[in-house]
Parts: sequence; structure tokens; C-alpha cells
Amino acid sequence: MENEKSIFEIPNGNISSPLGFKSSGIRAGLKQGEALDLALIYSECPAVTTGVFTANLFTAAPVQYCKNNLINNIYSRAIIINSGNANACTGKQGYNDAVAMTDYTAEQLNIDSNNILVASTGRIGTALPMDKVTKGIAKAASALSYNGGHAAAKAIMTTDTRPKEIAVQVNIDGKTITIGGMAKGSGMIAPKLIAPHATMLAFITTDANVSHSFLKSILHSAADASFNRISVDGDMSTNDSLFIMANGKAGNKILEPNSPDSSLFAEAIKKVACCLAKEIVKDGEGITKCVTLKIENAATENDAKLCAEAIANSLLCKTAWFGNDPNWGRIVAAAGYSGASFDPDKVNVYYDHLPVALNGSDAKTPEKDVIKILENSNFTLMVDLASGTCSYYMWTNDISYEYVKINADYHT
Amino acid sequence: MENEKSIFEIPNGNISSPLGFKSSGIRAGLKQGEALDLALIYSECPAVTTGVFTANLFTAAPVQYCKNNLINNIYSRAIIINSGNANACTGKQGYNDAVAMTDYTAEQLNIDSNNILVASTGRIGTALPMDKVTKGIAKAASALSYNGGHAAAKAIMTTDTRPKEIAVQVNIDGKTITIGGMAKGSGMIAPKLIAPHATMLAFITTDANVSHSFLKSILHSAADASFNRISVDGDMSTNDSLFIMANGKAGNKILEPNSPDSSLFAEAIKKVACCLAKEIVKDGEGITKCVTLKIENAATENDAKLCAEAIANSLLCKTAWFGNDPNWGRIVAAAGYSGASFDPDKVNVYYDHLPVALNGSDAKTPEKDVIKILENSNFTLMVDLASGTCSYYMWTNDISYEYVKINADYHT
Repeated sequence: MENEKSIFEIPNGNISSPLGFKSSGIRAGLKQGEALDLALIYSECPAVTTGVFTANLFTAAPVQYCKNNLINNIYSRAIIINSGNANACTGKQGYNDAVAMTDYTAEQLNIDSNNILVASTGRIGTALPMDKVTKGIAKAASALSYNGGHAAAKAIMTTDTRPKEIAVQVNIDGKTITIGGMAKGSGMIAPKLIAPHATMLAFITTDANVSHSFLKSILHSAADASFNRISVDGDMSTNDSLFIMANGKAGNKILEPNSPDSSLFAEAIKKVACCLAKEIVKDGEGITKCVTLKIENAATENDAKLCAEAIANSLLCKTAWFGNDPNWGRIVAAAGYSGASFDPDKVNVYYDHLPVALNGSDAKTPEKDVIKILENSNFTLMVDLASGTCSYYMWTNDISYEYVKINADYHT
Repeated sequence: MENEKSIFEIPNGNISSPLGFKSSGIRAGLKQGEALDLALIYSECPAVTTGVFTANLFTAAPVQYCKNNLINNIYSRAIIINSGNANACTGKQGYNDAVAMTDYTAEQLNIDSNNILVASTGRIGTALPMDKVTKGIAKAASALSYNGGHAAAKAIMTTDTRPKEIAVQVNIDGKTITIGGMAKGSGMIAPKLIAPHATMLAFITTDANVSHSFLKSILHSAADASFNRISVDGDMSTNDSLFIMANGKAGNKILEPNSPDSSLFAEAIKKVACCLAKEIVKDGEGITKCVTLKIENAATENDAKLCAEAIANSLLCKTAWFGNDPNWGRIVAAAGYSGASFDPDKVNVYYDHLPVALNGSDAKTPEKDVIKILENSNFTLMVDLASGTCSYYMWTNDISYEYVKINADYHT
């Protein structure tokens, strides 16, 4: 990223950091306990808006609604988001409930319901308790504030252990442009997504003035560089959504692909997306370590990607990392069944700077030195396919007892 | 299986049950502790032989050797098999060691080394301790007996908790034909194999007189109906191999595709393969339950297969089963990202006889009734895609704390 130095992170920045955005997070009573479970993002003026969504055939009702809405509308004013219930596999009733959420939000905010988007996350297959939802929407609307970003980030959490938020600033056209973001997700997270589909519930706001078509293209690129490169458990959700709203309040000249600072703006969006994506991996269910996977010198980018996805989704690799076991045999076995083309006898594997396999055989590095690297909560695994010049990266994590515990759900 | 009634299982049958086959299982000292770790299968006369092997790019040295050998040879006399070391990713030395194993076995048995095959299983990336192996081969050769089948099945085990063996008999052409089999495998087990590749270490012997080309075709079909339909953890090994030896000692007229009882013979082979494959799933690492997956009414068999593989490899489905949680949302989510084409609003899901989802929504079956089914160690999960007439089945299992424990390996 050539422009990285020009992108500044705002301390405690969040979804409300850009000019003209209010937000709130309140408790509607959809989740057990006392947790916040309903969030609202609101722009004071129409914001150019676009989104990318799950590639799953089972798309949740709110995803269906938003996909339809964004075909006809390039502006939005608000997004209403609940946790505790995915409103997925809920039939016609579910779709009607999603529409009712936008209608009721529109009424509370006194704006056109076509300008409201909706997202849900939580358990699949149960109808929303609409009485609680409508009461919650009224509460969320009256709680909107410039300081509501942190509460909103908390309200969209499910099995997340912490909110995921960020804001950055760039100077474009003599104006300070702010970009804020929040995301949720720690399970049912996988990278097998078909562009232009994205993964996870994530929201980005900005006060930049930007054209709809350019915003769309930036969002797709940012999703491919971030959310489409993470895997917690290899399962793709029915609700994955990434939205961006740009309200133009910063007052810059409209950004188009050939604007002087278009690449700086695109990189700032990408930085926000990558930061949120990495936060999701670091907060993966039951995780004890985060692994940056780099596949280098592949014949094609697709070979590198296939190889990265096979390793990131391999239970044997993930449990080996949990056990601080370098076990490069499992790494190369996954590379070998990934579908990527390469010469096995030339493959090299490194944990951080230490080789564990060279030319497809044991590198004879003392195991205790490699184990020291695996004991860290972050490390890099590099697989050199020695077959070309293409590469691919991903972020993934280990699988622990705790993951099994969280997902076995203890019905007994 | 129309002929199922005509296929009889022999009590305590094993790899030595067919006429003219001796075997042995001895301790060479390759595994820790006192376990047997070297097995030998021997036919008293040349046996028509074929095999199918892993689709992994990283093929272990013994797999490379056998693939080459079987291009030029249609007969074999013996297979030497070690556990405790996979002889995979071991470079030229590994290949030389595999060749040396066949040479040394040939010398001990006083037969041509071209008639010896070799298989290895265990940890990847470490050279075989050849001094122990050669001493072991001498011991295994002198231990050969008609009663050695059970010891052989024990000697090929790795993390398996029990040996996997079977023998069946059929009457063909007035002669009793016996088929014996043994297999090992409980981790690194996945179905993403490209025909004609098979999975796992498995060996089938028979005293039938059968042509090489027909035996080859039967073995491929049997592998596709059995070992290619199991998944323990979604990881494909570097060593997966399935061999069949047919020595003709039963004295039947040579079996060809158009022989009167060719389909009965093929079904008997398939029965042995399916039985061994199911035993592998039932003995999967840390397993608490075995799930028979049936995908029905798909538009194409490939749609059904994609759907079955996605569910069988879904960590969220596997951990839900472990927790006795019906969680049909995870089932349909996996179906939805599998790549299969169907209408989500028509999908039905059943555990045994109980519907949990109908037309893509909750079937309202009391959860406690479904949980009773999930508490069994075996149950059937049926997904009706309501899109055509094709189907596919698989056998899979749950993922428990114990799986993570076994594979995290406790280096710390």
C-alpha cells in the first residue's frame, strides 16, 4: 500500500466518526441476558449506498430485501440491525418481518422506507418476535446520537467476545475524509465466496462525496481483499452482508476512478475492511492463535488461493496449531489435495522466518525453535510453491476444545 | 442390492479367509509402546492385482512405487505394510526405502520383487528406520500363516482403536468364492477424491478367478460406493490406497463382465468395501456418533454429492451433532453454500423419520423428540432437495473435544 502513511487511524473511532452519521445500540430483548441486540445507523442526508452479500443459496429475508432494494436505489438514510435472530429460513413471514422492520424504522425517522436497509444475525429458522422488535426500533430511533457508535457495535454481536470497530482519516482534495466501520462475526465464517459476494455483517460509513459506481467497485475490491480472505470454520452464513454508506458531508469534489486521490480513498476503505476482517479472525470462536497464511510463487493466483483455502479449512492443520505442533506434513497434505498445480518436490514451508520443509522434505530445523513461534498468538505460515510468480494471502485461526464447546451448544 | 441375500458373512472372517492367502502382523519397533506395526499379505500363487490411490499431489513413496508397478504388472504375490511412519515427503531416500522394502520382502519369500507391493501409514516427513524395517520383514515372513489375518489387521492400525476386517462368501459357478478385507484409518479422512482414486489403507483378497480388466472396473465402482463416500475430518491423506488381489484358487470359470454371476461378485466386493468404509467412520478419531447422510430428489447426482460433502465436512454440523443439537439451520446453510442447485423454499430435512424443516422453514416437530434421535450413536439425516430424481449417500460422524485432543498432539 503506497499510500499507507497517509491513512490515519482515529483513537476510539467507530461507525459514527464520519460527519453526519448518528447511531445507537439498545436492548430490545431478542437475546438472553442483558445484552444489547438492536443497532441503528443513520445519515443526516441521503448517502450513496451499496452492498455485497452471501453466496449462500439460503439467503436470509433481510438479505433478500436489501438485494432487491439496492437494485433500484442508490441512496439510503439508515440501516436497522438486530442480533439474536437471523430471520433466515423463515419463509414469507420472515420476508414480511424484514419489510416491517424497514417500514417501522422509516416511520420513526420520518423518512421514506425505500431509504432503509435491514440486517439480522443469530439463530436460523425461528420467526422474529416482532412486538419486541418494533418497541426496540422506537427505542433505537430515540437513542440515536453522534456518540452511539460503540453501543451499535456491541448490539450487533452474537458469539463475539468484543466489538469490532475502527475509523480512519485521509486528506483528499484539501478536505478531511473520515471512514468508520464496525463488524460482527466469530463463527460460521468461511471464504468460499463468489465475487461480488462478501461475508459477515459489516458496515462502513464515510462522509466522502463519491459516485455510486466508483463506490461499488471499491467495495467489491475491498471485500475481496479482506472478508473474502478469512476463515474461522469453513462454514458460510445465510446472512453475510457488507454495506457502505457515503453521505458527502466532507464536501470534497465527487470521487471518480480517475480522480487524483481515488487510489488513496480506495486504500483507506480497504484498510478499514481488512482491519475489521482481521478482528473477526482474532475473535474467532474458541481461538487461541491467529495465523497469517501466505502462499507464494504459485503458477496462478487461483492455485495460490486453492492452496490457502485448503490449509485454512483443514481441521488437522487447525488442531495442530492449537497443540503448538509444527506438523508440516499436514500443511503439505492439504496443499496437495487443494487442487492447485505444483511440483511437490520443490515446495518450501516456513513458520515466520524458520523453514520446516525444503524441497518437499524435512528442513531439519530443530522442532523446539519452531514450537517457540507457534506458542505466539500470531504467526505467519508461508508456503512457497516454487512454480511461478503469483501469490495469495488469508487470515485464519486454530480450533480448540472451546470451539467445540461453543458449537455443541449443550442441549443435554 | 438384489443379490444381498446370496452374500454370507463369515464369523471372524479376515484377509486370510480366502483360499491360498497367508498373512502376519508383527512388531518391528516403528511405533511407540508394544503395538504391532508390520503386516504381510501373501498369496501362494500369482494373484491378479489392481489398486486405486490418493488424488493428493503429495503421494507417499510407497504409493508412487505401487502406481508404477501396477502399470506393468497384473500379478502380485505379496503386500508388505508398515504403520508408524507414512514414508511420505521423504524425497529420493523415501522412494529407495520403499523399493528396498519390496526387495527385502522378495528375498525373504524367494519370489520376484516385481510381484511385491508396499504400503505405509503414520507420520509424514520422517525417514523410515530401515534397520528395524528389514529385521521386521524377516520376522513377518517367517510368521506367515493361514491364521495371521487378525494380527495383520492390528499391525496396520495408527490412531484406530480397533482392527477393521470382514470376510464374505458367495456361490458362483458351483464354487464357493471367499472375499476377505481389512482397512485402517480414523483421521485424515475425506471424500474429495477423483475417480479412479480411492481413500484409506484397505486391502481385499479373494480366491475368485477373475480377469484383470473386470477386477479393475469392479474395484473402481466399489471404491466410489464406499471409501469415496466417507469423511471424518475432510483431510485427504498422502497415502490412501486400496488394493485387491484375486488368486483364482476357488477354481471357478474366469469371471468377466458378461459372466452369469458377475453382478453378484461385484456386489460382494462392494459389500466388503462398504463394510470396511463404515468401520472407518465408526472408529473416527474422537467420534461419539455415526451419521448416514442421504440427499434425495436432487436435479443431478453431482448436486446431491456437493450437498452431501458440504454437510459431511461442516464443522458447525459436526459439533451440533456432538451436542445433540438438531440445528437444521446449519444443515441447510451448508446445503446452501455447497454449490448444488435447488430451490431453498422447497427443501425438507429429516432426522430418521422426523421432519425438522419443511419447505425451507421450521417443521415445528417438538425438539425433544428430535434430540432423542440424536442421542443415538447412529442416525440418518435426510435432505430432500425436491428438485429432481437423483440421490447420493455418505457416511460421516461428529467432532468432539476428543478429536481436538487427539490431533492437537500435546507438544507443550
